[in-house]
Amino acid sequence: MSEDADLDLNRQSRCGFPEVIYGEGKPADLILRLFERQQANGQDSLVTRLSVEAAELLATHFPHGVHNAVARTFRLRAPSADSALSGQSSLENAVSAGPVYVVTAGSSDRPVAEEAMETLHWMKVDCELIQDVGVAGPHRLIRHIPRLQTAVAIVCVAGMEAALPSVVGGYVPCPVIGVPTSVGYGASFQGVTALLSMVTCCASNVVAVNIDAGFKGGYVAGLIATRAAAGQRSK
Amino acid sequence: MSEDADLDLNRQSRCGFPEVIYGEGKPADLILRLFERQQANGQDSLVTRLSVEAAELLATHFPHGVHNAVARTFRLRAPSADSALSGQSSLENAVSAGPVYVVTAGSSDRPVAEEAMETLHWMKVDCELIQDVGVAGPHRLIRHIPRLQTAVAIVCVAGMEAALPSVVGGYVPCPVIGVPTSVGYGASFQGVTALLSMVTCCASNVVAVNIDAGFKGGYVAGLIATRAAAGQRSK
Amino acid sequence: MSEDADLDLNRQSRCGFPEVIYGEGKPADLILRLFERQQANGQDSLVTRLSVEAAELLATHFPHGVHNAVARTFRLRAPSADSALSGQSSLENAVSAGPVYVVTAGSSDRPVAEEAMETLHWMKVDCELIQDVGVAGPHRLIRHIPRLQTAVAIVCVAGMEAALPSVVGGYVPCPVIGVPTSVGYGASFQGVTALLSMVTCCASNVVAVNIDAGFKGGYVAGLIATRAAAGQRSK
Amino acid sequence: MSEDADLDLNRQSRCGFPEVIYGEGKPADLILRLFERQQANGQDSLVTRLSVEAAELLATHFPHGVHNAVARTFRLRAPSADSALSGQSSLENAVSAGPVYVVTAGSSDRPVAEEAMETLHWMKVDCELIQDVGVAGPHRLIRHIPRLQTAVAIVCVAGMEAALPSVVGGYVPCPVIGVPTSVGYGASFQGVTALLSMVTCCASNVVAVNIDAGFKGGYVAGLIATRAAAGQRSK
Amino acid sequence: MSEDADLDLNRQSRCGFPEVIYGEGKPADLILRLFERQQANGQDSLVTRLSVEAAELLATHFPHGVHNAVARTFRLRAPSADSALSGQSSLENAVSAGPVYVVTAGSSDRPVAEEAMETLHWMKVDCELIQDVGVAGPHRLIRHIPRLQTAVAIVCVAGMEAALPSVVGGYVPCPVIGVPTSVGYGASFQGVTALLSMVTCCASNVVAVNIDAGFKGGYVAGLIATRAAAGQRSK
Amino acid sequence: MSEDADLDLNRQSRCGFPEVIYGEGKPADLILRLFERQQANGQDSLVTRLSVEAAELLATHFPHGVHNAVARTFRLRAPSADSALSGQSSLENAVSAGPVYVVTAGSSDRPVAEEAMETLHWMKVDCELIQDVGVAGPHRLIRHIPRLQTAVAIVCVAGMEAALPSVVGGYVPCPVIGVPTSVGYGASFQGVTALLSMVTCCASNVVAVNIDAGFKGGYVAGLIATRAAAGQRSK
Amino acid sequence: MSEDADLDLNRQSRCGFPEVIYGEGKPADLILRLFERQQANGQDSLVTRLSVEAAELLATHFPHGVHNAVARTFRLRAPSADSALSGQSSLENAVSAGPVYVVTAGSSDRPVAEEAMETLHWMKVDCELIQDVGVAGPHRLIRHIPRLQTAVAIVCVAGMEAALPSVVGGYVPCPVIGVPTSVGYGASFQGVTALLSMVTCCASNVVAVNIDAGFKGGYVAGLIATRAAAGQRSK
Amino acid sequence: MSEDADLDLNRQSRCGFPEVIYGEGKPADLILRLFERQQANGQDSLVTRLSVEAAELLATHFPHGVHNAVARTFRLRAPSADSALSGQSSLENAVSAGPVYVVTAGSSDRPVAEEAMETLHWMKVDCELIQDVGVAGPHRLIRHIPRLQTAVAIVCVAGMEAALPSVVGGYVPCPVIGVPTSVGYGASFQGVTALLSMVTCCASNVVAVNIDAGFKGGYVAGLIATRAAAGQRSK
Repeated sequence: MSEDADLDLNRQSRCGFPEVIYGEGKPADLILRLFERQQANGQDSLVTRLSVEAAELLATHFPHGVHNAVARTFRLRAPSADSALSGQSSLENAVSAGPVYVVTAGSSDRPVAEEAMETLHWMKVDCELIQDVGVAGPHRLIRHIPRLQTAVAIVCVAGMEAALPSVVGGYVPCPVIGVPTSVGYGASFQGVTALLSMVTCCASNVVAVNIDAGFKGGYVAGLIATRAAAGQRSK
Repeated sequence: MSEDADLDLNRQSRCGFPEVIYGEGKPADLILRLFERQQANGQDSLVTRLSVEAAELLATHFPHGVHNAVARTFRLRAPSADSALSGQSSLENAVSAGPVYVVTAGSSDRPVAEEAMETLHWMKVDCELIQDVGVAGPHRLIRHIPRLQTAVAIVCVAGMEAALPSVVGGYVPCPVIGVPTSVGYGASFQGVTALLSMVTCCASNVVAVNIDAGFKGGYVAGLIATRAAAGQRSK
Repeated sequence: MSEDADLDLNRQSRCGFPEVIYGEGKPADLILRLFERQQANGQDSLVTRLSVEAAELLATHFPHGVHNAVARTFRLRAPSADSALSGQSSLENAVSAGPVYVVTAGSSDRPVAEEAMETLHWMKVDCELIQDVGVAGPHRLIRHIPRLQTAVAIVCVAGMEAALPSVVGGYVPCPVIGVPTSVGYGASFQGVTALLSMVTCCASNVVAVNIDAGFKGGYVAGLIATRAAAGQRSK
Repeated sequence: MSEDADLDLNRQSRCGFPEVIYGEGKPADLILRLFERQQANGQDSLVTRLSVEAAELLATHFPHGVHNAVARTFRLRAPSADSALSGQSSLENAVSAGPVYVVTAGSSDRPVAEEAMETLHWMKVDCELIQDVGVAGPHRLIRHIPRLQTAVAIVCVAGMEAALPSVVGGYVPCPVIGVPTSVGYGASFQGVTALLSMVTCCASNVVAVNIDAGFKGGYVAGLIATRAAAGQRSK
Repeated sequence: MSEDADLDLNRQSRCGFPEVIYGEGKPADLILRLFERQQANGQDSLVTRLSVEAAELLATHFPHGVHNAVARTFRLRAPSADSALSGQSSLENAVSAGPVYVVTAGSSDRPVAEEAMETLHWMKVDCELIQDVGVAGPHRLIRHIPRLQTAVAIVCVAGMEAALPSVVGGYVPCPVIGVPTSVGYGASFQGVTALLSMVTCCASNVVAVNIDAGFKGGYVAGLIATRAAAGQRSK
Repeated sequence: MSEDADLDLNRQSRCGFPEVIYGEGKPADLILRLFERQQANGQDSLVTRLSVEAAELLATHFPHGVHNAVARTFRLRAPSADSALSGQSSLENAVSAGPVYVVTAGSSDRPVAEEAMETLHWMKVDCELIQDVGVAGPHRLIRHIPRLQTAVAIVCVAGMEAALPSVVGGYVPCPVIGVPTSVGYGASFQGVTALLSMVTCCASNVVAVNIDAGFKGGYVAGLIATRAAAGQRSK
Repeated sequence: MSEDADLDLNRQSRCGFPEVIYGEGKPADLILRLFERQQANGQDSLVTRLSVEAAELLATHFPHGVHNAVARTFRLRAPSADSALSGQSSLENAVSAGPVYVVTAGSSDRPVAEEAMETLHWMKVDCELIQDVGVAGPHRLIRHIPRLQTAVAIVCVAGMEAALPSVVGGYVPCPVIGVPTSVGYGASFQGVTALLSMVTCCASNVVAVNIDAGFKGGYVAGLIATRAAAGQRSK
Repeated sequence: MSEDADLDLNRQSRCGFPEVIYGEGKPADLILRLFERQQANGQDSLVTRLSVEAAELLATHFPHGVHNAVARTFRLRAPSADSALSGQSSLENAVSAGPVYVVTAGSSDRPVAEEAMETLHWMKVDCELIQDVGVAGPHRLIRHIPRLQTAVAIVCVAGMEAALPSVVGGYVPCPVIGVPTSVGYGASFQGVTALLSMVTCCASNVVAVNIDAGFKGGYVAGLIATRAAAGQRSK
């Protein structure tokens, strides 16, 4: 249909995973048609920043899909078990080179963290959520350090001054993807301070993505995990 | 002399300590005259951001003064032992309610930290310097936590993302004065990111002063220490 | 419950006061459960940025609690008189080393000032509110100077160009904690100009906290008062 | 000469005063030629932001001119007593409706204040300089208030948080022209904080000009004085 | 009443005009009480940024007051003809040294311009409004130049790139007070670009006030007019 | 040679003109080699932001080239008359659809304007320079309006508040390319205010390029002129 | 009527096209009257940023007008065929020197692109819309390159990092007008990042207009096309 | 020695690689001592941002070390072949899961790219440099796409509008680490525009590090490569 967004069905073969739909501002019926086209082409589907209305429409049409209301996502496997056409994402029996951990500083960071988790589930990557371990209560983080040191990658979600990725980065040997959040007030500037803090982080293994970009944080962590797992699986 | 700065000799009785001279851009002979006027009035002297030339001139005239080249300061006691006219600063036999610790994240933060230390020495406040305990090497800070928990106030000097005051603040019961430094590159923006990080700090006990304002950090910590010590001394 | 925020019951012994709950965005029943857990552990409770709904729920369950609608706070003593387990906050018969004054520039700054006052009440610190003494009407401030000179610490709440802390700082010997407010229009930039003004303040005894951070301003002033009072009380 | 700046000889009849030459980056010989053209047309001359070289060249050619090295200005009367062709600036026997005061917060603000003073002298406006009355030492300003209350306009020169115009504005009935200066460090951002402070000033009678724009501050104050004096003189 | 704003009844004798009430966020009954106190003290009243509700309350109590719904102002003379106690504002039979012109670039700037006009009416200053003469249609401004050249002061109200004050300033000999407005979109940044444009204006006679500060623009123009008129009147 | 920049010889056939070399930071001998390669391929050459050393080297090797020291450019025709391989730039006998005017606000804008002029000469586009017509002296611009109304495109070079393109744009029917310059001081922020002013310009026909981007301003004006001339020439 | 905006009926003869009405905040009946005046003077009409109410009023009065609800525009031909009085816009039988292409990066950019298209239709310029060719799916753009290389000008509409104009600019010989859009989140800062990206674009043929300024992008492209077509038509 | 930086010898076992020394501002003899301590502990050494003096001192003491003057780095293997104590970096016979490509947009980006390359060499990661493939000359990038699609990770170094990572990201299945550079002028703001562009990049696989942080870009790419290679090697 002429007004539809131009769906990139070629993305999976070029980039390893199908196109993910950014739901903000897209009408519910357009999202539904995009899902139908991906399904017809044997591709898994994921939509982020979903409205309540669109979520209900998708749930009606795809009762086997997974709706996460906190994350504002909906994901759906392709019809058959051989859904993943490219080698990289066909991880039905996923072999892990260590899990991805998604770590949050405070309880307000949870929606962004859930978006990262849903993205990792959609990529079939082994992942776990560790919440509310901001540095103001240091014992909360320290008890998780041994687990974090086994990670293949960590997604670190934090707002305000975002000290958490600096601390986590100093304890672990894997890449840490910082996701700044827009929670906070005053000079947190809707996440700008957290973004600058992550970008200037003294720990060598920390990188940053856009503010509230839970999907992107999860996606890059998932790419790293996929590469490491591919090595192990081919043993 | 008509072009001299207007020295505030009244500052000591009004604010507890004599005026401190900001040396940036002031000619050496003007600083010398200001010191002479303070000495003539029985006041202790301190100048910050001192040029090399001015430091040499002061050292020649006041061989008993203390020049700190890293801090770029020069301080001098008033001629007699009864120098401190107001009760608050007459701490010849200083009684401490716990020391002030000046803590730095990296070795580049040292000049700012030394300025804070010199200010505290001038105020006759018990103080110690703990250097290079940035969170990228977490064990470095942790071994100092028990000492920091005895402090009456902490001055925390850090640049880049300035995660250190957030971590220190979570471990201690006293006020933490954050001093952002202009060290770093790129998105550290000459200390702006560190300043925003300290201002948005999640720890409840952290406040901030201007970038590179070692004097101010030391001064406020000294005021807190003086109040606590005054209580103890009067026992 | 797994989705609850991770309450830091250890905070009181580590930092001198129990954790204060930031109410923004937290559901009413979660805040209620957090209060119940603190009460069960013999800790005083304080919540800030409270919604009207949450305030009503708390008032129903804790009729002895204090709700301040202007400050958007609710505070509650622990069940027994021996609530304060650590020595520092057990100030039932508070001894004062001078009060904390909370000073505002204009009538719009009052909610932030009330949040600081409630925090100080919760900390059992002697405090008073002086309102509407902005420098555009200089006689208003001048008549309060003698009282302000007896303070152990001052919380100075101001928006727009925030000239008040500079003026107050020049008259008093104690630390002044500047709290910028988001009142104003145009180039006040929701409090950013006030924050920058406080950070660059020429008076040596002025520090700054985040925009609208009445809690933090009160908390740090309370820590300073507690240290000074502890000295006096132990006489 | 074709590469010369396009001198606006028409300015005096249109705007009341001849064009003032902005010396920054202009070669010394070009400035000399511009002066010669103004003199040939019976106009007074003023150049600001003058290099040392250009000052020496002008002083050689116009020994009766006034060079102010601190202000970096050079001014020169037109050859004959009937220099001022328009009525407004022919104030040889200047009648004053109260002087213009140029007031500075600190000694580093002096070059900008001197530029304002030189501009006022060139405009033949009665003016006086009051230096170093920043609010950190409040008694310094207060002793000048009675004089300031007689001013026809005040130029207030201040850097850092620039609290001075707010305080002055609250005491006087005349317009106050704030000139922010680039002195200071850290979050003073080369005068931006001072500019924002002046723009958001709560006092109703304060306006602002560009950072370090001593000429502009003096010029507008001079225009106000000229209007008031014209009224009085025509009595 | 204890919660009332602290009305500055002393303002008129100190600054020449009574305090003007900033209505934003103030309850209607508080504004009413402030008016009653001013009236009881023989002072004229003006309130800006008035809500519809407060306007209705004032109109009911003071049927002789003037409500301007576009400007969001309400003004009221003091009960008797001798309202203006200080010499400066007792301009019942106003003598003009030329009018103040309030000039706007576009039709969206009108509310701010009306606020300036109301302020000038309240100050009893001769004034006129010239609308919609932005430089994109240059003939619109040029036909008004001869009138503008007779002004004692000009208030120039403009948003977006605010080129108007630069052009007006080049044609007239009087001070021009630029009032940036928050109209526009995109990189106009709610008036910040207009403010920066006015502050950096090449015309020597242009100053700036805060964004949307129609009151302040009118007030300073009124102060200038009052000084010039006082001179003429005393002839 | 492997460390050479990757010269885009294909640019002329794809984009109509050969690649222009950005000289900043490039060693003189590299620029020489790039010129030699273009000449060997029958392409005209232009380098901008040239160092003095590189200019001397080029002048030695290409005595027929044109060095403009103010613009910091060097340009050179291809060896034979059939230099321009694509139809668009083969304007040996240039037919004009009206000239391009390059207009500056002040004499400090001249280097940027010269860079635009040199670019237009290199493109064989009919062009003229009109200098120093900033709006503070309005008569200077008005006398050029009739000529400007015949232009096919105008490059408008201005710093500070950059009111000139707004005024020019209102008088002419052609596109106006605004080039902000970094001249000025204080709140001109090295050209940022001028850039914002041009971007928010109320005149519909004004676009903007980067600060000091004289080359880009000239190039786009040249593209417009080339299209119009191509139409006329083919008559 | 006195409160009407000052319609610039002279614009067509001066600038080639009638004034376009910016509908934001203008009452529906005012827009109607402005249309009636343009029609009475034989001028085409276009209004942008139209409210739903104003659109309905216009549609009732001018059933032959064209309302584009996505673009929020309404346009109307003048009553007779000889509507365009100046030569430039009388393109009833438009001759094209290549079309203008309006290109968007994503589906959210469409409203801005439609505003550009409507402007081009109103100018009677041959134009086409190519949607959703952002660089994340590079094959989408590449298939349109041959068509884009025939354009007389391209309007490139993009948000977020706005990489599209850089890529398009590198492939084509015509001017590219970048229109940044406010779509996106986080560090896209409502279009500021896209604007900065376009302004700093390495491709020599890219210029920028204000954020979301679809009208301006279309208008300047239309001016370029008109000049080129005028050349061809006169053959 | 007491003034030495606090070397983190524990870093290798905790994070997989030894501490890398940031040479900016560190005296040459301090860097020498830090190298000696690492060598004595069997650790590989790398220093970045090295001064010419320090480079010469290191080269004298460690003739087998590798100095890269463009990158301003010096690296040195540990004395024996069993240098890498932890499993992760003992890649003497490196097995690759695809190389890391370091890609630059322009020739000015080379120093930053070389720093990334040196870091990857020090980590013993298979890597290649592809220079000067900015999107203004699109054919330059396209010929490298097949190679880039085999990468395990890509470091993309670009300044100005930094469109390159967006384009590269759309073609490849691996993570892309964007390193903004401070090259450019005007609105590139020393790399801030490039940083914002990378952070808001529409391609899902792009992350960002600090401006000019070639070391960090290379380090994170190396961590990803190490994880993938570890999987393959253990086959």
